[in-house]
Order: sequence, then C-alpha cells, then structure tokens
Amino acid sequence: MGYLALTGGIGGAKLALGLANRLGPDEITFVVNTGDDFEHLGLYICPDVDTLTYTLAKQSNTKTGWGRQNETWQFMAALEDLGGETWFRLGDRDLGLHVTRTQMLNAGSSLTEATAHIAARFGIRHRILPMSDDPVRTIVHTPDGPLPFQHYFVRDRCVPTVTGFEFQGIDDAKPNPDILERLGECDGIIICPSNPFVSIDPILNLPGFRDALKNCQAPVVAISPIVGGRAIKGPTAKMMTELDIASTASQVAEHYGDLLDGFLLDEQDAALDGTLNVATTVAQSVMLTLQDRVDLADATLQFINTL
Amino acid sequence: MGYLALTGGIGGAKLALGLANRLGPDEITFVVNTGDDFEHLGLYICPDVDTLTYTLAKQSNTKTGWGRQNETWQFMAALEDLGGETWFRLGDRDLGLHVTRTQMLNAGSSLTEATAHIAARFGIRHRILPMSDDPVRTIVHTPDGPLPFQHYFVRDRCVPTVTGFEFQGIDDAKPNPDILERLGECDGIIICPSNPFVSIDPILNLPGFRDALKNCQAPVVAISPIVGGRAIKGPTAKMMTELDIASTASQVAEHYGDLLDGFLLDEQDAALDGTLNVATTVAQSVMLTLQDRVDLADATLQFINTL
Repeated sequence: MGYLALTGGIGGAKLALGLANRLGPDEITFVVNTGDDFEHLGLYICPDVDTLTYTLAKQSNTKTGWGRQNETWQFMAALEDLGGETWFRLGDRDLGLHVTRTQMLNAGSSLTEATAHIAARFGIRHRILPMSDDPVRTIVHTPDGPLPFQHYFVRDRCVPTVTGFEFQGIDDAKPNPDILERLGECDGIIICPSNPFVSIDPILNLPGFRDALKNCQAPVVAISPIVGGRAIKGPTAKMMTELDIASTASQVAEHYGDLLDGFLLDEQDAALDGTLNVATTVAQSVMLTLQDRVDLADATLQFINTL
Repeated sequence: MGYLALTGGIGGAKLALGLANRLGPDEITFVVNTGDDFEHLGLYICPDVDTLTYTLAKQSNTKTGWGRQNETWQFMAALEDLGGETWFRLGDRDLGLHVTRTQMLNAGSSLTEATAHIAARFGIRHRILPMSDDPVRTIVHTPDGPLPFQHYFVRDRCVPTVTGFEFQGIDDAKPNPDILERLGECDGIIICPSNPFVSIDPILNLPGFRDALKNCQAPVVAISPIVGGRAIKGPTAKMMTELDIASTASQVAEHYGDLLDGFLLDEQDAALDGTLNVATTVAQSVMLTLQDRVDLADATLQFINTL
C-alpha cells in the first residue's frame, strides 16, 4: 500500500520531488511538519507544507530557495511604508495561498482539508498530510529566553545559541488520523533529510506516533541531513554543536535510535558504512539537479527493499 | 474651530481634496461613512475611508477611479488560480493597507486609531474620522432579497432594483465621540456630493447624530450629487428612480429636509436657484481637475459664510 515520507522544509521537499517522480499518488504519501507554522499579520502560515506544495507543483522559487516562483513584492513594500512587520517575506503571489488557507480555516475547514484543496488547485495528485490538524508550535530555547521558531529561524537568522526545543501544544495534538491509518498498511517509512530536531521530532513526538512507528511492520529508514560533518542547508550542524552533540551523520542515526531499520549515508561519509548500530547504505545524497533527487529516491527505495 | 465635512466615496473625496487644499488640519475634519465596510477574505475593508485616504495622500488610482495608484494584481491572479473570490479587486499594494488595519483591529485598536495610524504613515495631516468605531452594515433591499452593500455595488454592479435600505447595527453604534465634540464648536458642516442614501444617511442615522446636527449653531450645507438630473458618478439617480423619487437636485434637498441651512446647485441646475425651501447657491460642481475641486471648496466655504 505504498510508502510514507516524513518531511520538513527544503531538503525534505527535494527528496519528496524525487519520490513523487518515481511513485504514483497511491504509492507515496507525504507527512509534513507543522511545528514551524505560525500566525503572522492575521494569516495562518505553514512554511513546510507550502515548501512541499510549491516544490511538487514545480512553482518553487529557485532564485531565493524559498517561496514561490515569479514572485513580486509590492505588498511587502506597501506594508513597510505603513510600518508593518516585514522580516517574514510574503510575496504577492504567495499571499494568495495564505489568504485562501486562512479563510478556509476560519470557515471551519481543517488544515488537512485546506492543504488538500490548495494542492489540488495546483494540480498536485499526491497527498500532502499536515502531521496534525491541531496547533503545535516549536519554541527554540536560547540563553536569552525562548523564541518562536520563525523568529529564531527567519527574523534572527539562526544566530542565537540553541539550548533546547519545546513543542508547544504537542500533548494535546492528535496525529493526523490519515497518517496512522496509512502506517498500518504501508511498505516503508522514509525520514527525509530534514532537520531532526525541528522538522522530524515534532512529527515523532506527537502522542502515540513513535509507538505506531515502532509497531509498524514496515522498515523505517532515514536519510542523513548531515554530510561530511555539515548540514547541506539550514542550522542542523550548528544546533548539534550548540547542544554538545558532534555534528556527524552517526549522531543523527543515534538521535533516531531504535526507531530506525536503516540509515542512508552520503558518499562523503562512506567510512561510516557498517559502523553504526543500524543497517546502512551509501548513496550520493547532495541533490543539485532533478536527476539527483530521482536517483536518491531510487537508492532509498532499493535500500528499503533489502531490509 | 473649523469645519466638518461628511463624505462617502469618490465624489465626496474629490471635494475633500479641494477643502484640504484650502484649509489646514485644524480647520477641517473629515467624517467618513463606514456603512459600506465589510469583512472579506479575512480582511477588514473600509472602501470610503480608503478612498479618502488615498485621495488626500495623492495615491489614488486615476486610471481605475478606485484603489491605489501604480497598482499590481499578482495576489488576485494567485487567488483566482486557487478558486478564491475575486469580484472585489484587491491590489497588491492596497493589500498592505488592509492587512495593517485588520491586524491593528484584531490587536484591539479602534477603527479611528487604525485610520489615524495609516493616514499619518501616508503623510496626511488632516483628521479622517470614521463615523463610528462600531460596525454598521448597509444592506440594499431588492425584489430578490437583501444584499450586503458591496455585493450590490461591486459584485452585482448596481444592477438589482433597489426597494430600500437598512443599516444593520446602527441602533447600537455610537457616533465617533470626536465628531460630536467637534460639532459643538464648529463653523459649518459640509455634506459632500456623495450618495444621500448609502453614503450620508448612515452617518445621519447614527443615534443622536441628527439631533446633534440640528442643535448645532453652525450652518449645514449640502452639495448636490445630482446634476442635470443625473448622478455624476455611481447609482444615486438609478436608486432615486427605483424608489419612485424624481432624480433631481430638488429631491436631494428634500431628502435632507430641515437639516439643511443651505444647498449648493450645479450651474446646470441654475433654474432651481431660489425655488427650494432652503437657501441655495449655484456653482460649477462637476470636478474634473484639481482646480475644479479647489474652486468648489471655495464656493462652498463662501456660501457658508453668507448663511
């Protein structure tokens, strides 16, 4: 009954695009972190869901690395003139999505329904499932106090030192029921090369989710977001260093622990192959081209079939 | 202590600009209809307040006749792709204003405060006072049932036949306290050439407002929005015909009744001068150029001084 892929932002969305190129809508479902969602300027913004939506719709902005392609910024300029908050850049076209989702949520739709509506309008046939319809908010702890995730990530550009994380609301958040249902009958779970702490942990820490994964018959594999001791994108390595964890692929595998049945290492980390407490494989995991994305999807699926 | 001008949309804003060119911020205050405000796409939209704001800021869109100058429409295009409501055209730059106001109202500011903040950021020194901080919603009655004002005016392009009007919420709406205070000490009240039924009546029908105007020592003058039997802009004449009222300047004066101390007729209606139950004067009131606006402001102020 296909695969489930757990994903966060840009790195995860790259592999998701490769998987979507290889597997049909019935063969893979994407489970997306919503811990970095936030309400801003009266809008309900879901950065990871939107990154995946724009990526699968081939509408992502390859110049900025985030947001929507062919974007314009007149709204931001007007907001700035009016003294508004402009640290989170919302493009004019991107706004159409946020306004649509906010309106649907205010009218009583669930986040899953709003996400499905938007994806369908973008011509996406694969299912994109927010990890939960209940609000979970990642808080980054720093020596100067707690920061909502987007304040840490975008406004403060990941400069503050991280001392820990908190997922507000998670104890009361129900995992998306569609996910649990699919877990019961799937052929494999893929943890995309996203940030383990702020992209994947919010999903894993949903009540009952980790147990459901452990009880699941299908193999769970993760692709290391750390390659050669560095994060390909984002603050993963910086966070690990600040948390006194060596920023290595081994430590990522360690972090996921006995949840994993397999771990995919980049060629740069081939020396680690066979040295971990979990089955490993080695592949080229730095995804620059569409072919890289498809090749990594193939390597991941082949690996799962050996487990 | 100066003048008060009651105004609605485009026609009123034209005279307001002329008045603002002649009188300083301490000499004239603008009182604006909010009966056509509405919540749309999760935004709090005040078409008449915004028309005046953009006009006084010299940011109004002279090509469309509404909205903001140098506008772009990427948001609308994105919204349309997502199946959203696009009958009310919100430009990318215009959106900056609506988001700012909505955010301020949601954070607890009054409409008067939000309006003042926005006007100040646009460099407007004159006071723009929403008629009330409480919601009043103009409903247009038609043979097919009631229509919220913007649905009648924009979506349905004033096509439905009007059988009457209703100002929802008006019994519970307090007139803006700043207005009542200024009424007590002003030199004259100017009813701009706006639609009497849907722009000026909501202001006049606020609890206590009509009595306050009658008790006010200063003269009240109106400028006819009907010229030569036709409305210069908008559905005033069409509404009068549908309500079985002759679409003449005389009937506009009749509509305001004993509230008026003076009525300004256009040169095209010079034949009516001296035939009404109120003091009249005649001036060129069709405002095509900025000089027309200033000249009509001068004529209005001169007229008030004779009363």
